[in-house]
Amino acid sequence: MTPKGFSFGGARCGLKNKRNDIGLIVSDREAQSAGVLTQNVVRAACVDHTRSVLGRGRLRAVVVNSGNANCCTGAQGVKDTSRMAELAASHLGVSAEEVAVGSTGVIGHTLDMTKVEKGILAASKKLGPDPMPFMEAILTTDLVEKWALRSLADPQVYIPGDKPDAGEGLIFGVAKGSGMIAPNMATMLSYIVTDLDTSALDLQQILNRAVSRSFNCMTVDGDTSTNDMLVLMANGASGLMPNAGDFEQALTDVCVSLAKQIARDGEGATKLIEVRVKGSGDPKNVARTIADSPLVKTALFGCDPNWGRILMAAGRAGVPFDLNTIRLALATRDEEYLLFQDGAPAIFDPKRVSAAMKSDYVIVDLRLGEGEEATIYTCDLGYGYVRINAEYHT
Amino acid sequence: MTPKGFSFGGARCGLKNKRNDIGLIVSDREAQSAGVLTQNVVRAACVDHTRSVLGRGRLRAVVVNSGNANCCTGAQGVKDTSRMAELAASHLGVSAEEVAVGSTGVIGHTLDMTKVEKGILAASKKLGPDPMPFMEAILTTDLVEKWALRSLADPQVYIPGDKPDAGEGLIFGVAKGSGMIAPNMATMLSYIVTDLDTSALDLQQILNRAVSRSFNCMTVDGDTSTNDMLVLMANGASGLMPNAGDFEQALTDVCVSLAKQIARDGEGATKLIEVRVKGSGDPKNVARTIADSPLVKTALFGCDPNWGRILMAAGRAGVPFDLNTIRLALATRDEEYLLFQDGAPAIFDPKRVSAAMKSDYVIVDLRLGEGEEATIYTCDLGYGYVRINAEYHT
Repeated sequence: MTPKGFSFGGARCGLKNKRNDIGLIVSDREAQSAGVLTQNVVRAACVDHTRSVLGRGRLRAVVVNSGNANCCTGAQGVKDTSRMAELAASHLGVSAEEVAVGSTGVIGHTLDMTKVEKGILAASKKLGPDPMPFMEAILTTDLVEKWALRSLADPQVYIPGDKPDAGEGLIFGVAKGSGMIAPNMATMLSYIVTDLDTSALDLQQILNRAVSRSFNCMTVDGDTSTNDMLVLMANGASGLMPNAGDFEQALTDVCVSLAKQIARDGEGATKLIEVRVKGSGDPKNVARTIADSPLVKTALFGCDPNWGRILMAAGRAGVPFDLNTIRLALATRDEEYLLFQDGAPAIFDPKRVSAAMKSDYVIVDLRLGEGEEATIYTCDLGYGYVRINAEYHT
Repeated sequence: MTPKGFSFGGARCGLKNKRNDIGLIVSDREAQSAGVLTQNVVRAACVDHTRSVLGRGRLRAVVVNSGNANCCTGAQGVKDTSRMAELAASHLGVSAEEVAVGSTGVIGHTLDMTKVEKGILAASKKLGPDPMPFMEAILTTDLVEKWALRSLADPQVYIPGDKPDAGEGLIFGVAKGSGMIAPNMATMLSYIVTDLDTSALDLQQILNRAVSRSFNCMTVDGDTSTNDMLVLMANGASGLMPNAGDFEQALTDVCVSLAKQIARDGEGATKLIEVRVKGSGDPKNVARTIADSPLVKTALFGCDPNWGRILMAAGRAGVPFDLNTIRLALATRDEEYLLFQDGAPAIFDPKRVSAAMKSDYVIVDLRLGEGEEATIYTCDLGYGYVRINAEYHT
């Protein structure tokens, strides 16, 4: 169940083992488009290409390869990115200026274009309503596919495992994440398509706000990639014209769901961590400092209710607070455990809290005082992260 | 071989297992003193006490316990810190206002003062010229003692394993480090003593500059502690009066050596990493971003010459540079390996570079262009870091 007028394709051309590595999304008509791209000084040719084609605000397709980021590959890399757009365009009967390009994988190797050519042709012949072949094609070290779907009218967000029954006027997003995930960047590959008619709206501004409340509130290891990219296409095929507020909420819901799925599937992660900080000053900065602290992340991996490390991390964010008036708790889906209040540790049973922390979803709730509440999504840091990243040789 | 007029003591009182946990350094006369203390909002009572007594600029002694940080322990913690100073003062026949106090260990538990009292008494009865019992007393997860010694006249810095023959006019420093090490803080416990007569110098200013070029150029995991403290005592017992420049250089040499020893002994570390970045703009920021990147640190642990991750980290520091003119190399003590130049990866044998990276000392050398050179000391990130920090329960 995906938005009207979009089709998806995936093929395996041999850039990586076993899984699809070329993906296509195609709109049967011109789609109003917007995007958020990496701000890293070191970036791939596909980022520049996609920024350029988004300048027109109209796309017909997206072509993505995994297994090779085509980054730090000089003039050849630029040429190969253009060629990917041209190949997709010619098979689909559209213009190369209507095709966004994404790449992900190792850095510094030129693309094997013989394989890529075959892959794009194969994917273009297998277009259909099922997004699964495309989702597989954008994964690298991800363990699971990530998607989120909601309709304009129904606030429910459907995710993997659900059987969507979302009605009409749909927003559907897919993402890949894993390592190198941090805020202030597009932070990963994500493609979001909708059949809503957004022609009356400023799509880029709405997307920027949705991203600032979702993907930019997520961190796995504080690192950000050379190829991060989010592209949104709205083709209007449903004929429904949402108002700006409803559309922004629905889009944000999809983005938040994808961000949480990415954090949960961080390299080596065993759980999704939601860090909530309330207070004046800069609560988002405090939440991010906690979420990026390796000492906090290893304690959470070890199911250790180590409030000392959480407060230590909060204390180095540069935001002043009074230890005597703060409140720190850990929570799971079911229950909350008070750890620190009124300047002293609360009385709690460490074994019981530790057992609860085995949950795959743990909330760190810190209240510094009155003020705004900020949320950052992250994951724990365990042996798996080291294994994946120490043994993933170039 | 330590500076004249200083004696050292250590005792085991049971705050931690097996090793000494109470340490004393005593000067036989008033010593001009300066310090750098943690800037964390969450800080222990001993930090406030030591800041206060350093206000007078004169100390006679330092008392330190390990095994318990006496942090987040409220009014009782403040009282216990004062009591530690008073106990040391009374056994040594000095004033409590002349005694700095340091604590390190777990957060949130009040000190067992019965043990501490016995420990301070025992340490005060065992004072002597050998600093080893003191060094043992300040360690927590450190694997090795850390010290550095140089004289005013001889530029050689002696470190553990050396048999010092340094002449007269000595600067001797000890440190503990391991986890929670990051710049912009005192970053650990360190005590530096000298028998040089610095009465004509601004000791605090000189120390600030030495710290900015040493301890504040070091990071293990980006985290900083509630109890970080560096105290410098200069008692003039050698009768030698150095000029400001010579003294600052000698002090900086000792501080740099201690910082490198701390980075090398980071939790779970297998090697010291020296990140050197040369360029205009903010090369220190670029070096720190590389040094703090978990993806870079795990690659170095895995002996993977993954230049892509290094450039990716450099690229997200927010400092602009041109990929086509930069140069990146890895080096060991013996040899340099060019990885990236003129916008493209260099031709190198990954297996040979990987074998060289098994060294316990690897230099990341990045030249973005003309300009200043900045150096940051750090360590790799391996399974040991996760093991220590996930299994170190409160």
